[in-house]
Amino acid sequence: MAPLQNDRLIKALLREPVDVTPVWMMRQAGRYLPEYKKVRQQAGDFMSLCQNPELACEVTLQPLERFDLDAAILFSDILTIPDAMGLGLYFTTGEGPKFERPITSTNMVEQLPVPCPSEELRYVMDTVSLVRKSLNNRVPLIGFAGSPWTLATYMVEGGPSKAYETIKAMMYQQPQTLHLLLEKLSQAIVNYLSAQIAAGAQAIMLFDTWGGVLTKTAYQEFSLDYMTAIIAQLPRAYEDQIIPKTVFTKNGGQWLELMAASGCDCVGLDWMTEIENAKQRIGDKVALQGNMDPGLLFAPVERIEQEVASILKGFGLGPGHVFNLGHGIHQHTPIESVTVFIDAVHKLSKPYHN
Amino acid sequence: MAPLQNDRLIKALLREPVDVTPVWMMRQAGRYLPEYKKVRQQAGDFMSLCQNPELACEVTLQPLERFDLDAAILFSDILTIPDAMGLGLYFTTGEGPKFERPITSTNMVEQLPVPCPSEELRYVMDTVSLVRKSLNNRVPLIGFAGSPWTLATYMVEGGPSKAYETIKAMMYQQPQTLHLLLEKLSQAIVNYLSAQIAAGAQAIMLFDTWGGVLTKTAYQEFSLDYMTAIIAQLPRAYEDQIIPKTVFTKNGGQWLELMAASGCDCVGLDWMTEIENAKQRIGDKVALQGNMDPGLLFAPVERIEQEVASILKGFGLGPGHVFNLGHGIHQHTPIESVTVFIDAVHKLSKPYHN
Repeated sequence: MAPLQNDRLIKALLREPVDVTPVWMMRQAGRYLPEYKKVRQQAGDFMSLCQNPELACEVTLQPLERFDLDAAILFSDILTIPDAMGLGLYFTTGEGPKFERPITSTNMVEQLPVPCPSEELRYVMDTVSLVRKSLNNRVPLIGFAGSPWTLATYMVEGGPSKAYETIKAMMYQQPQTLHLLLEKLSQAIVNYLSAQIAAGAQAIMLFDTWGGVLTKTAYQEFSLDYMTAIIAQLPRAYEDQIIPKTVFTKNGGQWLELMAASGCDCVGLDWMTEIENAKQRIGDKVALQGNMDPGLLFAPVERIEQEVASILKGFGLGPGHVFNLGHGIHQHTPIESVTVFIDAVHKLSKPYHN
Repeated sequence: MAPLQNDRLIKALLREPVDVTPVWMMRQAGRYLPEYKKVRQQAGDFMSLCQNPELACEVTLQPLERFDLDAAILFSDILTIPDAMGLGLYFTTGEGPKFERPITSTNMVEQLPVPCPSEELRYVMDTVSLVRKSLNNRVPLIGFAGSPWTLATYMVEGGPSKAYETIKAMMYQQPQTLHLLLEKLSQAIVNYLSAQIAAGAQAIMLFDTWGGVLTKTAYQEFSLDYMTAIIAQLPRAYEDQIIPKTVFTKNGGQWLELMAASGCDCVGLDWMTEIENAKQRIGDKVALQGNMDPGLLFAPVERIEQEVASILKGFGLGPGHVFNLGHGIHQHTPIESVTVFIDAVHKLSKPYHN
């Protein structure tokens, strides 16, 4: 295997020295790009795009053609696993993802199959292989999955939720049913991410979008413990290359110490947490990823540069910082602002590295 | 004026000794009660219920007939002010509140009138007077308003939002327009809450439902500074009775110190913050309100009692705690669980007071 031409991301995730701070964006392949919209239209619906390795590979690479990004991230969706479990995922305009057959009973949880990455989820592995080959070691490829808790919220609520009434009722009335569901999901995620690594993913990220709707003790029991178990079961290295793992819980700013103890290499930060505060609390244990408010990309050039400078200063000297947005890039982001953002990170971070 | 028969709430908000910890619930008058649904149907749509003082008074009092609550809270909506400003509030099933004429330009903000509490919002003041009279000093009546930032999000987005793209674009592109809007809203809220106090509200709460989607610096500038200004302009006392003020920012757990410095008497906590941690950080300055996950009301009796005990222990000895849920009670909550909850707070809190 030829070495990576740009290995800043991997080095920063492992808290090793780099020349400038690496940067990528959550949802960097997406609707703010006209070339994405074109391929999306060609593919038909969103899931057809995810399930077509050639097209999914094409959109994965699109942002790298435009911007000086330090990583590619697999184009896919966190709900591929529940879909492969037979719940029937579909997308409605404006309402987000939905399931035809949401979980409504303990019996359904017991019957739920653990999907095989080389069968039902083969299309994801094919995309990973194709992207890795197409990248030709230019930058590393990040693979990902949703956290068990986050997947379970969609599966039990049947789609996005405001108050999480249904899954909380399950959590407090039938905790054993929920634990069984989370265990099956964890097993599926371990298989899924292990297969992504074997297919070429060089770093892994766990998206825990909805862990932040729990109490601290429930977060530990129903979300973090499962992420910790997943990390422990994933290979530490593949073909002699360490595979760094990042855990991201939106609205988890009060629980950074818990996250840092999960066995992950890096903790992702949303923009509600100050990176200076996060560095003080857990910066001696893990790398930090984040954390500009994606809304800042609507600001004028000077304001974007000012925010980038402020976050770099907040993190301070030394390695262990992967610059990112605190959440996915907004749909209506002006493309010029992304160039300004990426270039500002590289330019303004130089003084923080030797 | 005859004194309150039950003044635990006011005393606890002012950190004065009480016999047991007072308790009430956000949205305690609402859809989980069959008697509420009956009146709601009688009134027609939701706004017609808010605008009918007799019926709004009736639903305000309903939960007090069922449960041993230590406070009543005005039945109304935070969006009465934008509605009175002419934006045309309406409610759609499943989609929440919407505006016919959302804010789309600086010009619209400049033209926006500050509504008069004794005219456009007269119906709210009539409800407050009627409730206060009907309560006959049994328990205190809480008045409330949404925070300027929270109202602005609905006015600019046109309804509930997932990513707050539109208002964030305004915040970063045209901060002066947003500041003008927030200033007008603050003025309207000061007038509105002052009129509620004059009409009989004995404590005040500011609901900042969406302050938690901001960075720390933006929260201070666009949300908290306006709440601080509002508190400073409200009367400290009315007819020799101090009117305590509570500030509640959902997902604001990382900024409790800032909130405690706003001039409020009490900080409301969501369930994602541990009350023990909050007490250590700001318990010497303000009272704390909260903070059981409303989802716990789906749990069996023993589990509810266990959670109440755990929160009481977390707060520990002494006054300054108003028990509440960390957010509004869920629509499908079993009514029996509410009785268990309220009674557990009174019963289990005795040892913490002398």
